[in-house]
Amino acid sequence: MDKLPAQMTVVGISKPGGPEVLVPETRALPQVGPHDILIKVAAAGVNRPDVAQRSGAYPPPPGASDLPGLEVAGEVVALGKEATRYKIGDKVMSLVAGGGYAQYCLTHETHAMPVPDGFTMQEAAATPETLMTVWHNVFERGGLKAGETLLIHGGSSGIGTMAIQLAKAFGAKVIVTVGSQDKADACLKLGADRAINYKTEDFVAAAKAATDNVGPNLILDMVGGEYIERNYDAAAMDGRIVQIAFLSAPKATVNFAKLMVKRLHHTGSTLRPRTVADKAAMVEAITAKVLPLLKAGRVKPLMDSTFPLEKASEAHKRMESSQHIGKIVLTV
Amino acid sequence: MDKLPAQMTVVGISKPGGPEVLVPETRALPQVGPHDILIKVAAAGVNRPDVAQRSGAYPPPPGASDLPGLEVAGEVVALGKEATRYKIGDKVMSLVAGGGYAQYCLTHETHAMPVPDGFTMQEAAATPETLMTVWHNVFERGGLKAGETLLIHGGSSGIGTMAIQLAKAFGAKVIVTVGSQDKADACLKLGADRAINYKTEDFVAAAKAATDNVGPNLILDMVGGEYIERNYDAAAMDGRIVQIAFLSAPKATVNFAKLMVKRLHHTGSTLRPRTVADKAAMVEAITAKVLPLLKAGRVKPLMDSTFPLEKASEAHKRMESSQHIGKIVLTV
Repeated sequence: MDKLPAQMTVVGISKPGGPEVLVPETRALPQVGPHDILIKVAAAGVNRPDVAQRSGAYPPPPGASDLPGLEVAGEVVALGKEATRYKIGDKVMSLVAGGGYAQYCLTHETHAMPVPDGFTMQEAAATPETLMTVWHNVFERGGLKAGETLLIHGGSSGIGTMAIQLAKAFGAKVIVTVGSQDKADACLKLGADRAINYKTEDFVAAAKAATDNVGPNLILDMVGGEYIERNYDAAAMDGRIVQIAFLSAPKATVNFAKLMVKRLHHTGSTLRPRTVADKAAMVEAITAKVLPLLKAGRVKPLMDSTFPLEKASEAHKRMESSQHIGKIVLTV
Repeated sequence: MDKLPAQMTVVGISKPGGPEVLVPETRALPQVGPHDILIKVAAAGVNRPDVAQRSGAYPPPPGASDLPGLEVAGEVVALGKEATRYKIGDKVMSLVAGGGYAQYCLTHETHAMPVPDGFTMQEAAATPETLMTVWHNVFERGGLKAGETLLIHGGSSGIGTMAIQLAKAFGAKVIVTVGSQDKADACLKLGADRAINYKTEDFVAAAKAATDNVGPNLILDMVGGEYIERNYDAAAMDGRIVQIAFLSAPKATVNFAKLMVKRLHHTGSTLRPRTVADKAAMVEAITAKVLPLLKAGRVKPLMDSTFPLEKASEAHKRMESSQHIGKIVLTV
């Protein structure tokens, strides 16, 4: 293996603003902590929180890199003194606390997973964030069981397209909401049982109609705003609603009698501030229960587009257009 | 045993309205179904839903008696053909689907519990509704564990005073909100660790201060309205909020980012529409886990006042004054 360089090319946020504030910089390689591994990044996933961070709305947590980028895939090129899980040269994918938009990126060894057989590095880079978000919120937090119905808002997003595949693989029925026929087609092709175009249909009535008037047992919502009370209207008795973002608005006026009378559970979570141990526990559960599905080719991220690292601003423009279907990835 | 009369005295709702619409009537004794037992009522508990039903806001569920009254204690005087759990002459207390304000009242045999040793019939009549509400919402739904902190709004209500005792008996720390010093004293005497007077203190700040700035793990809320977002502010990370009524208002404008970022669980339930099987399961769990505490004298309903059945309107006036501390009961 070549000796590591002292410096690397990254894409930083020159100041809070539009996509144009994402500019290449030169930085020193990050310091490898005792349980860290250093990854030579082959590809990095682009996610909504990167856009929020760029615009100044989502500062990185204390101790994290100030660079955007929450997931990478690449080759292990350095190990912390006490890091024993991987060896130099291993191909891994990992959720990272930041700093993915770079030639080299650190991760805690317990957060990395081997790149599944048959995955390109782009596909691997597109996997950790959606996989962990979906696994935790749909299965651990939302408790989805075989035979239940899951309603996914934003069905064609990176998270949505992963959620469709995982929910189907675990025996659930899947309904999605989308904003166009192209997106509906993509979701149905991935296995969704019903795609509702929210621009032409009322999702409450359509989701009820698709479930013999029972309503979905679980709703994965990244919209918020007026969707919140409509989720309460749509959900089955004893239904669960898991909130993972607010593309519309976090604030809403809601009649909570609906939550009480239907015995709903409304919860939510964000991945980034979870502890190292929490994330390690998710990776452990995923390694046991989900990686086999990835290795078998039954679940794979739906890829929208790939941009070179230096064109990260173009990648952000694409994400903000909301025209993408599936994941956007940067290659290094 | 005496022969049963054909008719009985009850208190009915002559029309939706104030306490004065509660008037004595004569009715035929109810028909005993296969798994029912007929109770000669010694005392009947008065509850908030009775007030809502009287005012026309809470119609009885299909198939239930149109008479108010959700809990009674008395003597078994008739058994359905397939009812085997109790025998004539047994003293029982029971949640009922309605019809408690009467000389005789039906219940499903699986909903009755023996009157605990040392309980007067008034105390027994004051027990089922609060016991089942607290058991289900605080322990089954809210998952309260020893060492956690429970915040109870309306600490001096029938439900609040039962919740204080049960939560303490199971090893939790208890904080209550109340509207007067008398009510605070009553709650502290029952074992509450801290009573917050919501008229003079901000409950969010006070509950944080009482928990080393962590916040309560579980909040039992019967207020709603602006309390909902304040509950989100007060709750610990991963906290649970269980909504059992809306004495203020069911509608509220809330910032759900607080729910997501703190990974809260907001849920709720109402007891009356639960299935016969659901209620039987609660009674079974309570019989195993809580009745021993009642028999041992460690948990007992706090009694506010007793009125003769014909003075049910006076009992409702007392409840609507919100001056009561603990349970209001009618004697027959």
